[in-house]
Amino acid sequence: METFNKTPLNTVKRIPARGRYDKETVFEILDAARVGHVGFVVEGRPFVIPTLYGRKDDILYLHGATTSRMLQQLEQGIPVCLTVTHEDGLVLARSVFHHSMNYRSAMVFGTARIVAAEDKLEALRVITERMMPGRWDEVRLPNAKELKATTVLALEIETASAKVRSGPPKDDAEDYELPVWAGVLPMLRTFGPPETDPDALREEEVSESVRRVTG
Amino acid sequence: METFNKTPLNTVKRIPARGRYDKETVFEILDAARVGHVGFVVEGRPFVIPTLYGRKDDILYLHGATTSRMLQQLEQGIPVCLTVTHEDGLVLARSVFHHSMNYRSAMVFGTARIVAAEDKLEALRVITERMMPGRWDEVRLPNAKELKATTVLALEIETASAKVRSGPPKDDAEDYELPVWAGVLPMLRTFGPPETDPDALREEEVSESVRRVTG
Repeated sequence: METFNKTPLNTVKRIPARGRYDKETVFEILDAARVGHVGFVVEGRPFVIPTLYGRKDDILYLHGATTSRMLQQLEQGIPVCLTVTHEDGLVLARSVFHHSMNYRSAMVFGTARIVAAEDKLEALRVITERMMPGRWDEVRLPNAKELKATTVLALEIETASAKVRSGPPKDDAEDYELPVWAGVLPMLRTFGPPETDPDALREEEVSESVRRVTG
Repeated sequence: METFNKTPLNTVKRIPARGRYDKETVFEILDAARVGHVGFVVEGRPFVIPTLYGRKDDILYLHGATTSRMLQQLEQGIPVCLTVTHEDGLVLARSVFHHSMNYRSAMVFGTARIVAAEDKLEALRVITERMMPGRWDEVRLPNAKELKATTVLALEIETASAKVRSGPPKDDAEDYELPVWAGVLPMLRTFGPPETDPDALREEEVSESVRRVTG
C-alpha cells in the first residue's frame, strides 16, 4: 500500500487513531468531493477560500479567472493547504461531552505552479469531469480566448493525511443507564430534480451525464 | 442594515457583484452550517482544519480537547480565517467555460481567545445547539472534569464577507443555439433515518430533537 510520508506537517496529533496516511484513503476522500477549502498566507494572515478542483495522480488542478486574487497569490509558488471534508453524520451521545461527528477529511500540503498553455485543456477536463462526469463530451470545449482568460494551477501533493470517524457514540460506562436515546443521524448529499435553464431557446432532453446521477 | 466594514481583508475581488457585507447574509450562512474550515498560520505555513462551531452575536465558539494542536495554536491569539461553504447546485452551461456552482460562502476574519472557565458551559451550549437544536436539554451536561478537559475558544468576528451565486447558467449569446441541455442540478443536504446505538441497554424512543429534523 502506497502511503504519504508522516512528517510534522501532516501527522494527526489529536486522536491519532483516526489518522490515515495511505494514498487510497486520501484519494477516495478527495475524489468524492468537488469543493476544497484552500488555505494560503498573505502578509502573515491566513485566507481560506472554497474552490472547485480535480485530481490526476498526485496533482490537484484548480482554476479560475486570471484576475482572481487567490490564483494571483498561489501562482507565486507559496505553500498551500487544501482541505476537504465530508460530513457523514451527527453522533448523538448520552452526554454533551461525547457528542461528535462522523466525517472523512483530507488535508493536502503542497505548492502550486501555473499549468503551461499546452496542458491547460487536459487540466480543465480533469476539473470538469470531477464536477460532472461525462459533461466534457456533451458541451462546447474552451476556445483559445477562453483558455487565455483562465489560469489553471497544479498543486502537487507533497504530503497529505486523512482523518476519519465512523460508527456509534462512545459514552462513559455509567451513562448507558441514562434514559436517553443515542445513536447516529446520517447526513446525506443528494441531487434534486434538474432545473432546465429558463433561457433555453428550445426543449432539450436532460443530458445523459445528469440523468446518470439523478437516476 | 448592519454591515461589516469593507477592508482589503474582506473585500470580494473576483466578481464583486457576488460579494455581500451585511450581517444578515453572513449570519444566515454561518447559522445554516455546522462545520467551518479554520485557517491559521504556523511558522509561515497555512493549516486548514474542519471544526464544529456555534455563533452568538458577533462571536463564533469553537471547542476541542485541550491537547488539540489547532486549539493550542489558536489560543495564542493568532489571526484566524474561518470559512463556511454551502454547495447549492451544479451550474451546467452549454460551454465548459461557463460551468459554475451555485453556493453561499462566508469568510470570517478575527482572532481567537480562550473562553474563561465560568463562560465555558454557555459556549458549549451554543455549539451543541447549533449542531442539534434541542439536544442540550435532553442529555447529561458536562461535569467539572469534562469542562476542564475541554478548551473553548471565542473567535470575535472582526470583519467578514459573504459570496453568493444562484440562478441558471449564463452562456455566450451564440451558444444558446447549441443542441445541449443546460440548467442547474440542485444539491441537497438531507438526514437519513436515525441509527440507534447498537450498544444501547434498552429501547428508547428517538429523541424529540432528532424527530424534529427527520420529520
